[in-house]
Amino acid sequence: MTLSSFVHSHPDKQVVLVQGLGFVGSVMSLVVANAVNGNYAVIGVDRDTEAGRRTVDSLNAGIFPIVANDPKIADYFDAVMKRGNFYATVDTAAYSWADIIIVDINFDVDKTNNEQYALSGYTVNLRPFEDAIITIGAHCKPDALVLIETTVPPGTCRSVVVPLLKTTLEARGLPSDKIRIGHSYERVMPGPDYIDSIQNFYRVYSGVDEASADAVEAFLKSVIRTDEFPLTRLGNTDATEIAKVLENSYRAMNIAFMVEWSRMAEEAGVDLYEVVRAIRRRPTHSNMMFPGIGVGGYCLTKDPLLASWARGNLLGGGGKLEQSEAAVSINDQMPRYAFEFLWRRYACTLVGKKLLLLGVSYRGDVGDTRFSPVEPFYRCLLHAGVRVSAHDPYVSSWPETGIQPFADLSEALQTHPDIAVVSTGHRLYRREETTDLLFSCEPMWIYDTIGLLSAAQINKLRQKHTVIVLGRGDL
Amino acid sequence: MTLSSFVHSHPDKQVVLVQGLGFVGSVMSLVVANAVNGNYAVIGVDRDTEAGRRTVDSLNAGIFPIVANDPKIADYFDAVMKRGNFYATVDTAAYSWADIIIVDINFDVDKTNNEQYALSGYTVNLRPFEDAIITIGAHCKPDALVLIETTVPPGTCRSVVVPLLKTTLEARGLPSDKIRIGHSYERVMPGPDYIDSIQNFYRVYSGVDEASADAVEAFLKSVIRTDEFPLTRLGNTDATEIAKVLENSYRAMNIAFMVEWSRMAEEAGVDLYEVVRAIRRRPTHSNMMFPGIGVGGYCLTKDPLLASWARGNLLGGGGKLEQSEAAVSINDQMPRYAFEFLWRRYACTLVGKKLLLLGVSYRGDVGDTRFSPVEPFYRCLLHAGVRVSAHDPYVSSWPETGIQPFADLSEALQTHPDIAVVSTGHRLYRREETTDLLFSCEPMWIYDTIGLLSAAQINKLRQKHTVIVLGRGDL
Repeated sequence: MTLSSFVHSHPDKQVVLVQGLGFVGSVMSLVVANAVNGNYAVIGVDRDTEAGRRTVDSLNAGIFPIVANDPKIADYFDAVMKRGNFYATVDTAAYSWADIIIVDINFDVDKTNNEQYALSGYTVNLRPFEDAIITIGAHCKPDALVLIETTVPPGTCRSVVVPLLKTTLEARGLPSDKIRIGHSYERVMPGPDYIDSIQNFYRVYSGVDEASADAVEAFLKSVIRTDEFPLTRLGNTDATEIAKVLENSYRAMNIAFMVEWSRMAEEAGVDLYEVVRAIRRRPTHSNMMFPGIGVGGYCLTKDPLLASWARGNLLGGGGKLEQSEAAVSINDQMPRYAFEFLWRRYACTLVGKKLLLLGVSYRGDVGDTRFSPVEPFYRCLLHAGVRVSAHDPYVSSWPETGIQPFADLSEALQTHPDIAVVSTGHRLYRREETTDLLFSCEPMWIYDTIGLLSAAQINKLRQKHTVIVLGRGDL
Repeated sequence: MTLSSFVHSHPDKQVVLVQGLGFVGSVMSLVVANAVNGNYAVIGVDRDTEAGRRTVDSLNAGIFPIVANDPKIADYFDAVMKRGNFYATVDTAAYSWADIIIVDINFDVDKTNNEQYALSGYTVNLRPFEDAIITIGAHCKPDALVLIETTVPPGTCRSVVVPLLKTTLEARGLPSDKIRIGHSYERVMPGPDYIDSIQNFYRVYSGVDEASADAVEAFLKSVIRTDEFPLTRLGNTDATEIAKVLENSYRAMNIAFMVEWSRMAEEAGVDLYEVVRAIRRRPTHSNMMFPGIGVGGYCLTKDPLLASWARGNLLGGGGKLEQSEAAVSINDQMPRYAFEFLWRRYACTLVGKKLLLLGVSYRGDVGDTRFSPVEPFYRCLLHAGVRVSAHDPYVSSWPETGIQPFADLSEALQTHPDIAVVSTGHRLYRREETTDLLFSCEPMWIYDTIGLLSAAQINKLRQKHTVIVLGRGDL
């Protein structure tokens, strides 16, 4: 099917274009094509690169390109395939058909870290994002709604998107006063509630003017269950852009805050998990973080830097966000701390030891290894002369390290590791059969870097093995 | 009535002694004397100083020494007076009658701040606390339960209380193996839920050994509604001591975290209150803090320092808690930031202006000015040549500054201030009659440092006055 035949086969529908078919855009496309209260023809557009064409071909062939354990994804994709209201393409002509354009591309930060993994610098490059907006302006209808969902440095809609769209429209000899531009950030969480994290969750939105905000509101009401999860409109796009990076900076800070307390608990012989569980009973303290190997994923590791950069560069402010930058730097060092805890406990003699990583992805029951804290942890091990292998049922190849993880745990354990490290929270590792498998091994060290093992598991395993847990000085 | 006749008039009751009759001990005495599931004779002991004797005399005369707007306080005190199961004294002989001794004395930190109000140093002096423990050991029964509720540097029960009690008992020729020592921290919140914050709230506890922990558990079950608010036992006293200071450090950090975001919002022309309200809809982010004039009260301003000091000095650790110390320093500077916001907005010409503070206590609807952030704010104003007066219905005299606040708002406004500053969250300032009173004044500036004024109040007041709000760049 061609693009124009797709559009012409849906004459009664508004056309929604999703720009960027990554972890947000691909699932957002499904949500819009299955709108709770609307009837859309959805065009997913990715870049004309090898990876982009692969994604597009996969989608058009009926194969959803993202593996996730949310059963709704398959249901939604099946429904869309039957209905035929989704089409993927790399053709920029698609923009000319769209009534609504949703921007779901990435906005990266280039970070540099020193040998201790502390943040030593970073650069923010607006260019790729500007190019994407120019592509829109060069093809879109003059009265389209452009909805930015990408996490951007605050100030971007006002000082980048608006002028770029207006000038590109004017260059085409079109009126520039009919375009509507809004911002509403997603809170997507890959995993078992992938779809729900878009469709059944609160949304904050804004527009560059009243008409834009109204248009965003009408659209969001058609795709999200806003009866149960009401929308919040903020005064301008700076405010919603700040809200997004503030949310994630707050999370990053709360993780960073626990790092030095973990060290204190380890020194003092205290079980910090027990302490945090006790404190979390207080409703005001229920989101206190547990100790852990580090922060993964695409957002928490860079959003505070987008915010800090924007303060001086887009918002006319006086300086950086020192604390929020410090949080990123502390979190970047967490895998090193996790390594050092092992190194101290193992009496510093790790050279030549065989170590098996249990889990390499950035999050439990997810197959994504990008920005996984297990990677810098692995690099510390490598540097110390440790022989590392890995097990991960969700990751057949770990591109960041070249390691091919074992899919089968008993096979992985046949490497007779000196140390097994629980490094990702896959549910599998909580199961009784896993405990039995580990128990059946020759005496070894078991190091839990995320507090996954239950008291019962630890009690059993300690009958044979040495068990240590990050943030627990009592073991 | 003498101490011994008090005790002998309650032969059937266990004697509970509360050491320290301040904001915690006095109310704790009421809770124990009104135990939900026990029958105690309570002796409150304060120091033999002028202030201590005044508190004791007041209590024995039937006048509760703390003014608070929790109606339960009067009810509980009346009940105790009728039942006659409470007696206050400065006589250390009281310790010899006690089956249970609850330590509710203060543990201060001496802080020094530089001219910018940043934390420049602090000292922790164990001596006054040690003296209090020695007083107990010199008089107590050898099988008493000593329950520490004071917020102490982690490690104190193990490394200070245990050896001091044992050696003082041994010096008296008594066995030192029967004493039971436990730790359970309060979460007292002066205000309308003063009693409930003790009696109807979660508790964390521990003992220096199993028998001690069991004794603490039995006692807490008799005075707290543990059916609704279950207890949590932790492994040792280090753990519960860490839990207390971690709770408060976490809160202090979450306040400090917002400071630089307030500056960013002010620079960007964004209403940060609106942003935070939007974010707080997320259950995981519901405790995000709003901008404000600063942190008050006795706990958040010092507990992170107790923790940091303990890490190196009592817990055998490697260093300080850098982030937690930084949080205190940032929070100590908040009143200066609040001043600077006014100074910039008022175009730097504050010399000779008349400014009226609306509220001087550290917390809304409370009469306590100790550690109020309004005090350093006032000092900044004074330094800038501003003529300051104050209104506070709960504070007739502000000892830290020598100012006598007006009790009546219309009288206070007759000073014709150039600037009125909402500095404490008394509910009175939210009332319509307050808005009307402010509206009736000659045109002036109104500066809300805590986001107290509603949108409706601001809309009305802006018809005549200039209204600015800390953390809101949009006004």
